Amino acid sequence: MTAPVVVVGGDAAGMSAASKLNRDAPDREVIVFERGEWVSYGACGLPYYVKGAVETLEDLVAVTPEEFIEERGIDLRTNHEVTAIDREARTVTVDGPDGEFEQSYSDLLVATGARAVEPPLDGMDTKGVFTLHSMGAGADIRQALGVETPAVDSRKAATEYADAKSPESVGIIGGGYVGIEMAEAFAEHGLDVHLFEMLPHTLQPFGAETAATVENHLREKGVNLHLDTAIDGIRGDERVSAITAGDAAVPVDLALVGVGVAPNTELAADAGIELGDTGAIATDEYGRTNDDHIYAAGDCAEATHVVTGKPDHVPLALTANRSGRAIGQTLAGAPTPVGDIAGTAAVKAFDLEVARTGLVDEERGRAAGFDPVSVTITAPSRAHYYPGGSKIEITMLGDRESGRVLGASMVGREGVAKRIDTVATALHTELTAHQLASLDLAYAPPFSPVWDPVLTVAKVLESKLN
Amino acid sequence: MTAPVVVVGGDAAGMSAASKLNRDAPDREVIVFERGEWVSYGACGLPYYVKGAVETLEDLVAVTPEEFIEERGIDLRTNHEVTAIDREARTVTVDGPDGEFEQSYSDLLVATGARAVEPPLDGMDTKGVFTLHSMGAGADIRQALGVETPAVDSRKAATEYADAKSPESVGIIGGGYVGIEMAEAFAEHGLDVHLFEMLPHTLQPFGAETAATVENHLREKGVNLHLDTAIDGIRGDERVSAITAGDAAVPVDLALVGVGVAPNTELAADAGIELGDTGAIATDEYGRTNDDHIYAAGDCAEATHVVTGKPDHVPLALTANRSGRAIGQTLAGAPTPVGDIAGTAAVKAFDLEVARTGLVDEERGRAAGFDPVSVTITAPSRAHYYPGGSKIEITMLGDRESGRVLGASMVGREGVAKRIDTVATALHTELTAHQLASLDLAYAPPFSPVWDPVLTVAKVLESKLN
Repeated sequence: MTAPVVVVGGDAAGMSAASKLNRDAPDREVIVFERGEWVSYGACGLPYYVKGAVETLEDLVAVTPEEFIEERGIDLRTNHEVTAIDREARTVTVDGPDGEFEQSYSDLLVATGARAVEPPLDGMDTKGVFTLHSMGAGADIRQALGVETPAVDSRKAATEYADAKSPESVGIIGGGYVGIEMAEAFAEHGLDVHLFEMLPHTLQPFGAETAATVENHLREKGVNLHLDTAIDGIRGDERVSAITAGDAAVPVDLALVGVGVAPNTELAADAGIELGDTGAIATDEYGRTNDDHIYAAGDCAEATHVVTGKPDHVPLALTANRSGRAIGQTLAGAPTPVGDIAGTAAVKAFDLEVARTGLVDEERGRAAGFDPVSVTITAPSRAHYYPGGSKIEITMLGDRESGRVLGASMVGREGVAKRIDTVATALHTELTAHQLASLDLAYAPPFSPVWDPVLTVAKVLESKLN
Repeated sequence: MTAPVVVVGGDAAGMSAASKLNRDAPDREVIVFERGEWVSYGACGLPYYVKGAVETLEDLVAVTPEEFIEERGIDLRTNHEVTAIDREARTVTVDGPDGEFEQSYSDLLVATGARAVEPPLDGMDTKGVFTLHSMGAGADIRQALGVETPAVDSRKAATEYADAKSPESVGIIGGGYVGIEMAEAFAEHGLDVHLFEMLPHTLQPFGAETAATVENHLREKGVNLHLDTAIDGIRGDERVSAITAGDAAVPVDLALVGVGVAPNTELAADAGIELGDTGAIATDEYGRTNDDHIYAAGDCAEATHVVTGKPDHVPLALTANRSGRAIGQTLAGAPTPVGDIAGTAAVKAFDLEVARTGLVDEERGRAAGFDPVSVTITAPSRAHYYPGGSKIEITMLGDRESGRVLGASMVGREGVAKRIDTVATALHTELTAHQLASLDLAYAPPFSPVWDPVLTVAKVLESKLN
């Protein structure tokens, strides 16, 4: 009898793989070990849970453990942590509620995800300092704001924090996705928001032009921006009292640290699985590691960037779902590449939609061996005469040598988040600026000018590439 | 001295060509003859003008004749009709305010557009019967509704019509773009709207599934649909009183006929310019007709369909602008193909966005030599937990033999009109369903589920193609 397929980690990549394998090869046994209690949850929804737009943590769950087990017949074991891999014996060591045991595997999928980076700042362990690293952390933050949330014992500290003094201000450390989304969430609760970013701009993957437009909007919304500001530490005795940077101390009642994520690679690395230059687990086009029987997918793994052709680490939800699903298919007997990534992403920043794909700044373009040219335009979101329209700002990067489009970033009040997909599709098919400008895209006065903004920016880029 | 480039028709194609030529080759003389008074206007905006969302006809104009003449230095002559082409002498006969004259040309662009088809119905000349064929027609309809509009003499009849009895109901004949948009416009004014369509469904280019969803919405909005209903005529003595179909007579106070457009080819055909099978002017990839010195572009000309590879006639604004611009470049010395069309289009139907691209029904797919398969899905417009989302319904057609995507149609309350562009881009690059399903598209909870609806439908199509 063949040993089962074992999946380590029950979120997007792991559950996608297990579900697909289970559907395509019902005879093949699969066991999923998840160290926490939650599986298949939308971590991307946590800021909206804190904001109050989403009522309960359970709302964020796409499929519950019970549904996986009872309806889909998947052997899912929550509260089971895999602590070691023995590649020669093809077994994993599992620490579960009933103690430790060994589980043999035929193929293993490492889908251990990523964790919030905790920077070595003074005062990181002060009460009232949070990261948004898990479902529980989301509940903690909501309770620390004094929002009524089903209280469980582990949340007691956060509840007491709010009870002692309801926070009126917050310092957010880090101006990435989480920082921007949480600024909106905290502002919704009436907090005075201070956002600290070490670099000259927020939203680093979106490029300086787009970020500057977002920053103007954040200021309009009352967010206090501290750009180009390296934090020294978080001050406070019983509770957070200030964020310090050089000589300055900004008084705040709460702190959220969101300075990025790091792949959970320890389990794999300890077993001799190779990591790539990005620090995430190196994989081939099928998601296989340097061990033929061990795959890696999701936020812990690298993927191939469609523009550079090089391994990259862009921990995003679709990549995790897609690579997990592909590995499930491969294990079911139909070898399926995990697919390339373009780093396509969108984020809501108060009233703005912000989106990006590919390479958006010249420096990154040069580092990838291109001869990059960048253009920025603004164009209307609707026909000029149709009421309610607004401006869309697009920055697009092209390669002088090949004429290819390398990436784009855009920002506006409407029609941005999914408009980026046209550019993403162009990247996957290696379109030149001329070819992109020649596409037959949709026009109707309420939704677009005759020349869609993507066509317009491609025309401008084309003229600058010649 | 070389004779000037002559452009016949001053709307999208003609003015795009003249502007581009003027910019790229300022030394080359260009004369535009426009038989009407309006140039470069957004005819697509007329329903919104009638609705009242757009205040004045002037709002629809992108660039005025004065701006073309004074700022861009283009020799534009409105109220000048070209009545004949002498290909041997390379001259056109022009009928202007000061009489008839001959104008020689080096190259000629025929951009005569299309006109509203007037079906041979009884009672077409009854007072209160309109087509939406021109700016003036838009003003007439608005005045016939009793909306205060700057009155000019030519509008007197329409004003009197409203003064005699303010219309309370309207019969729209034809369920295409104009019919659907005008249903919304008339409903906005409180009219009881009857929409008559000869075929079993409205919006024929969008396929039966999408049309059925739109029709349910129209009924919810109070529109009386008469599908599968061939009109006999329009009844009325002094003014419209009813639309008759077989034994039935539906009483209405006003009638709008919108049964499609026909290319204005007479000028070209009379000069021996070849027409294609579609009835529009046949052109090569540079927009050239069978006469090396005569080009045709816009609603009067054919273009190559990107999926079938065959000439087609899809009179839409972007095609006109794009082909005009390309011909301007070609005439300026940089030969530029006019580009293929995918028939990409969007339309607003009350609260719905409706969009299509490529081939959407199996019959059309088979006629083009494919072995077509169609799937229809519904998917959420946002993450399942994010408030305010709605369903997007997508029908996608694929080819069993090549695995290629052939086209798609979609409908929903948000995120539809520009989401079709991803599919349009996939058509231009001949992606298979598998390739389309593997794209890295944007995800953020407020804007999309993790698997964008386009990816989901492509996955379903892929599984059905295998």
